Amino acid sequence: MLLYSLDLFGTAVFAISGAWVACRKDMDIFGAMVLAFVTAVGGGTIRDVLLGATPVFWFQDTLYLTVIFASTLFAIALRKWHEKAQWPLQVADALGLAVFVVIGADKALTYGAEPVVAVMMGVLTGCGGGAIRDVLADEIPNVLRNEVYASAAIAGGAVFVFLNSVLGFTLAAVISATLVLLMRLLALYNNISLPRFQLPKINN
Amino acid sequence: MLLYSLDLFGTAVFAISGAWVACRKDMDIFGAMVLAFVTAVGGGTIRDVLLGATPVFWFQDTLYLTVIFASTLFAIALRKWHEKAQWPLQVADALGLAVFVVIGADKALTYGAEPVVAVMMGVLTGCGGGAIRDVLADEIPNVLRNEVYASAAIAGGAVFVFLNSVLGFTLAAVISATLVLLMRLLALYNNISLPRFQLPKINN
Amino acid sequence: MLLYSLDLFGTAVFAISGAWVACRKDMDIFGAMVLAFVTAVGGGTIRDVLLGATPVFWFQDTLYLTVIFASTLFAIALRKWHEKAQWPLQVADALGLAVFVVIGADKALTYGAEPVVAVMMGVLTGCGGGAIRDVLADEIPNVLRNEVYASAAIAGGAVFVFLNSVLGFTLAAVISATLVLLMRLLALYNNISLPRFQLPKINN
Repeated sequence: MLLYSLDLFGTAVFAISGAWVACRKDMDIFGAMVLAFVTAVGGGTIRDVLLGATPVFWFQDTLYLTVIFASTLFAIALRKWHEKAQWPLQVADALGLAVFVVIGADKALTYGAEPVVAVMMGVLTGCGGGAIRDVLADEIPNVLRNEVYASAAIAGGAVFVFLNSVLGFTLAAVISATLVLLMRLLALYNNISLPRFQLPKINN
Repeated sequence: MLLYSLDLFGTAVFAISGAWVACRKDMDIFGAMVLAFVTAVGGGTIRDVLLGATPVFWFQDTLYLTVIFASTLFAIALRKWHEKAQWPLQVADALGLAVFVVIGADKALTYGAEPVVAVMMGVLTGCGGGAIRDVLADEIPNVLRNEVYASAAIAGGAVFVFLNSVLGFTLAAVISATLVLLMRLLALYNNISLPRFQLPKINN
Repeated sequence: MLLYSLDLFGTAVFAISGAWVACRKDMDIFGAMVLAFVTAVGGGTIRDVLLGATPVFWFQDTLYLTVIFASTLFAIALRKWHEKAQWPLQVADALGLAVFVVIGADKALTYGAEPVVAVMMGVLTGCGGGAIRDVLADEIPNVLRNEVYASAAIAGGAVFVFLNSVLGFTLAAVISATLVLLMRLLALYNNISLPRFQLPKINN
């Protein structure tokens, strides 16, 4: 099934991004495995836990673990090329995000979530893994600060949840995933960011 | 129901505190939403996950999300007044903490928790969200370091669990919530802290 | 039962290590309790949540909480001796890790996990608590960076899962726990680390 292949593709891409953060942070091979793992399946795992869909999805299907393992070794082997790989990696990441958002929102709907909650679960599936990766790497999650990453996920999730009830799953998935992909590519191309706002430090 | 209104009130107050931390940390609007969300419902969400009360409480009732969304916009709009708002915010936060502790301990009891576990779940419901907020903001959770925050929650939870078995829910809730509120207000007024203890650095 | 006693022993040791980190980080008594708690039961708690084995294990059996409470007070009282205690603490920690890995892998198997997932759950049970402790203390988890900690857990988990299907639980548990213990002691004695790899900083 195409969606499943894309899901594994997204898993591989997210795993590579996690492994490279581990390299940057001077972790060992185990650290790279863990960061690859949480980046790839962290968002979906939290989604499953919140839904009560336990045991979580990668318990039943170890192909996810195999893909993550292979991707981590691949990322470590090719770590010297990480700079040249930035552009293709981010395009691949955009596709992974699009797929994860659709899968996450769809799973929440099958568990009877309200539309707005289904959108949140899509965003969580797409962005949660990267956020845990950043927390483990002792950084503020990038998704909370930079780029049109979250807004692409939100827009995609909202469009999917709406169209899914009107046009059915397949069309909704294709359209919303395309939307996420286009928003991400446009953002990468233009380096757009959401408006930021700052406060003077509060002593509390 | 009064308790439900107070719960939503606490949700709003915690959301505002989360949104303002996001402002301090130079996050974007999505970051403010996420921090408001985890601060407001993070503790109760972990409680539900540990209890197996899934899907978690805000899946069924999207009024929580609406309140958080509105509070975040409110907090961003009024972020220039955050310093003047410190005192009223902390009083409101004390009320929120009191309500959350009672709700959390009560829910644990209905899931058959031992008394000491029910107290812990009350403390977790009251303090957990703020702790996640601080971790996401790349800080050591404030509750682990400062003020009579946790001790007020522990005292309130213990009194509630004890009185609940003697006097019934309503009286127990009123008395224990009042206790938390008074302890917090006294602490704010006197700036009391628990005794600290320090160690020379260990190299490990 | 011997395994249960060893489990409580490991709980006590991990709690002490958590409490001492809290001391180093200038937290108060509540912070020490929380860090002792998450270090001691954090890994097993996440395991239970992922398995859907909720309410989690320490809800039913408050002896864990009692042990953690007593260990924290003990650690605070003896915090001046932490340097002299480093060597015995690390030996005790190695035993705790060995027991936790076996218990975690075994529990996952009883929930029908695939072998590779059971190994992961063993590693998570043994190493997860320490990782949460480090995140709360605003540090990169030590297990991702240092020593043969994770590899001992992985080797022990893999050997246990394999032998468990061949020789039955008791022999598998004894052999694999001994393996973890020996690997840890050898590592402490020789100060071995897994090969590290570094990358120039990526700007992302």
